[in-house]
Amino acid sequence: METITVETHHTTELVDITGTVQSAIDELNVTDGIVYLFCPHTTAGLTLNENWDPDVKRDVLLTVDGHIAPPDSRHRHGEGNSPAHIKASLFGAHSAVFVEQGRLQLGRWQGIYLAEFDGPRRRQVWMKFLGS
Amino acid sequence: METITVETHHTTELVDITGTVQSAIDELNVTDGIVYLFCPHTTAGLTLNENWDPDVKRDVLLTVDGHIAPPDSRHRHGEGNSPAHIKASLFGAHSAVFVEQGRLQLGRWQGIYLAEFDGPRRRQVWMKFLGS
Amino acid sequence: METITVETHHTTELVDITGTVQSAIDELNVTDGIVYLFCPHTTAGLTLNENWDPDVKRDVLLTVDGHIAPPDSRHRHGEGNSPAHIKASLFGAHSAVFVEQGRLQLGRWQGIYLAEFDGPRRRQVWMKFLGS
Repeated sequence: METITVETHHTTELVDITGTVQSAIDELNVTDGIVYLFCPHTTAGLTLNENWDPDVKRDVLLTVDGHIAPPDSRHRHGEGNSPAHIKASLFGAHSAVFVEQGRLQLGRWQGIYLAEFDGPRRRQVWMKFLGS
Repeated sequence: METITVETHHTTELVDITGTVQSAIDELNVTDGIVYLFCPHTTAGLTLNENWDPDVKRDVLLTVDGHIAPPDSRHRHGEGNSPAHIKASLFGAHSAVFVEQGRLQLGRWQGIYLAEFDGPRRRQVWMKFLGS
Repeated sequence: METITVETHHTTELVDITGTVQSAIDELNVTDGIVYLFCPHTTAGLTLNENWDPDVKRDVLLTVDGHIAPPDSRHRHGEGNSPAHIKASLFGAHSAVFVEQGRLQLGRWQGIYLAEFDGPRRRQVWMKFLGS
């Protein structure tokens, strides 16, 4: 498998890794199939969402961080980052995108994001390609 | 890849596409493997859930739309559909279902759904099959 | 495909199935590829999360059960388990993990979990391996 390294800069952040994934596919010199992405962390995840208006990312995190999985004084995990673990399970650690003629097949507005929920950190995304 | 077109009729809606996916597999004339489904939209997703009692779909949307990702006056995205983007990330854009002897392998109560969160629209679901 | 059986013991519970999945891979005698896991139930799901501090599981369920998808008197589904269906869609029914030299490739703190949301029950996880 290939490994992509992503540096995050905020506590929570959606980092567009579409270009990095495409570059890794370019190096594999493959044509048609499916690229699998796997996040080997328990306080980060992967997601697909709009890559045009940055306010989308901001609004997603506003609601996810502040409303869906906010800090809770009843949490007991000693590291204090239980909300990040919850968000990791909600977003998921795995994604898959089709590849045709060597190009990621995404919708017009779609980008691939590493979802950082307990940063800043150095994160990895693992990648494997299966031909079709 | 194959493309399935789905017409949605409501703002939010779970549309059962199980039969359409099975028909597309029938046309491929394949036997054993995995069918991958990909939603190339950022305000819709894919999910598996009960296909028997329609009240399940209703209750899921009641809670997702009204409680988990409700409208929020602090959202800034100009199109005003940030809740739909949030739900798309929570449900996910990708699914995979096993195929044996040409038939989708699903649990007794499971159907495959396009989850519309910003309709009504004409949506696409992309499909790719890898043999095992 | 292979079938893993999981007995759950509580209404909601995260059951670590990492060892069981590794054992099933061992029996397949495979080397490199991707193992796909599929949950054929509509009130349970699959997730990856920390397998070290048990308080993480506890905190995740505290927030998911009590805050994100709590009981709601407006739910109509006759079985009364609509929150379980909601959580199933949020967590997802499908996961995929890379395999190299016959070993599951997981992050240092990651385990694979069956997420029970309407137990206790006997659950199945279906498994398929595609070589790379």
